[in-house]
Amino acid sequence: MKIAAITSYDGRYFSGWQIQKNAVTVQEEIEKVLSKIEDSNVTVRASGRTDAGVHARAQVCVFDIARDISPEKLRLAMNANLPYEIRIMEIFRVDPLFDPRKDALWREYMYFIWNGAQCYPHMAGYVWWNKFSWDDKKVKDACSYFLGEHDFSAFCKTSECPENSIRTIHKISFRRKGQLGLLRVRGNAFLMNMVRTIGGTLDIIGRGKNDPEWILELLNEGKRVQAGPTAPATGLFLWRVGYPDFTS
Amino acid sequence: MKIAAITSYDGRYFSGWQIQKNAVTVQEEIEKVLSKIEDSNVTVRASGRTDAGVHARAQVCVFDIARDISPEKLRLAMNANLPYEIRIMEIFRVDPLFDPRKDALWREYMYFIWNGAQCYPHMAGYVWWNKFSWDDKKVKDACSYFLGEHDFSAFCKTSECPENSIRTIHKISFRRKGQLGLLRVRGNAFLMNMVRTIGGTLDIIGRGKNDPEWILELLNEGKRVQAGPTAPATGLFLWRVGYPDFTS
Repeated sequence: MKIAAITSYDGRYFSGWQIQKNAVTVQEEIEKVLSKIEDSNVTVRASGRTDAGVHARAQVCVFDIARDISPEKLRLAMNANLPYEIRIMEIFRVDPLFDPRKDALWREYMYFIWNGAQCYPHMAGYVWWNKFSWDDKKVKDACSYFLGEHDFSAFCKTSECPENSIRTIHKISFRRKGQLGLLRVRGNAFLMNMVRTIGGTLDIIGRGKNDPEWILELLNEGKRVQAGPTAPATGLFLWRVGYPDFTS
Repeated sequence: MKIAAITSYDGRYFSGWQIQKNAVTVQEEIEKVLSKIEDSNVTVRASGRTDAGVHARAQVCVFDIARDISPEKLRLAMNANLPYEIRIMEIFRVDPLFDPRKDALWREYMYFIWNGAQCYPHMAGYVWWNKFSWDDKKVKDACSYFLGEHDFSAFCKTSECPENSIRTIHKISFRRKGQLGLLRVRGNAFLMNMVRTIGGTLDIIGRGKNDPEWILELLNEGKRVQAGPTAPATGLFLWRVGYPDFTS
């Protein structure tokens, strides 16, 4: 049977989602546990990769399992064997043809930004601690320029920029609760480092070093070197993934 | 000069506030750093002790320092030398006669309770993960019985119960955001394990095993064995302390 597991992980402990040599990755940890339960190799696919250090509130992982076990028992068995930093939050059967990457209608990221002179120790691993204060109005105005379909090559890690770098942003919002800024971005798909580069660019605008209209220029010219720096992975969460039949 | 430092700490890494042999405590870590800066022994006093594992959002620590240094520079020097799990959030001079324990008008604790089948890994260290769902109406009703002046001996660790166990609860509220329950308690002072025992007792009521009116009985009879168990320290935060001139 084909299973979808809604998976949450603390990105600080992993070199991202995807398996790679000489590094601890989320995919490898989950495959190890499932292969032990299944007693043969199990491959896991996700809605997409997350970079090293990026958190997931609700990544979607899909795999086939032949063993006769109820999804809820499987969830408990997985959690009993996985490191604490990875938790299977929900689990259910999906159509045998379900593809977590191709079937995704949208991905949503949440970026927590702490604008303050000092950050609480309980929060430090889950926010981008940015000591500058932001002009929220400018940040909000800048956000609106990202909406819709654009070539995001200025917002992609240069060495990883694909031939087709056109993506669609469905929703983007910035709001604040005291010193905590919340940037939420929903799009059909994302390029490598895209949300982090949007963050680093908004920082320059929020600090008043450039105008919101600068985003238009960056999107038109498509040069990564012109945009802001890649902001830290800490604070960035893969928040939800939307499919025709469910939302993670 | 006499200094007050608003101090936040991740309780998981310490055996509570107060110095004790063969254990890492917050007080000892701060005194070590200050004694190094001052180049002679510095003693630190707080608004009160916190138990092992209990977090602090804003503990108030007070000490005398002779060295000629601005409070803000001192704050930065302390944070540069303290473990990351302890952070000095704010710092300022206080009256030489200021006493962080005796001058406190009230202490406020916040208890984060996660009522869910599974807890996010990012939250696990900061909530009491309680797999049962609560009847919030009953929990709220039960809270109201704690208001005012009572003998709280039924809510104090028996071996640590002082002769005078009368305390006053000024405010107590329970609210919920999805699976997260927030219990906030403000009182003139607290007995050892008092908030955790209130939590463990509310759990029994929330799960429908006893009625809200049971609180009245417990307060009247004053027997610790009759109240609920001591709920976990994880999730409990010393949130704020109120003084005539400032609130932490």
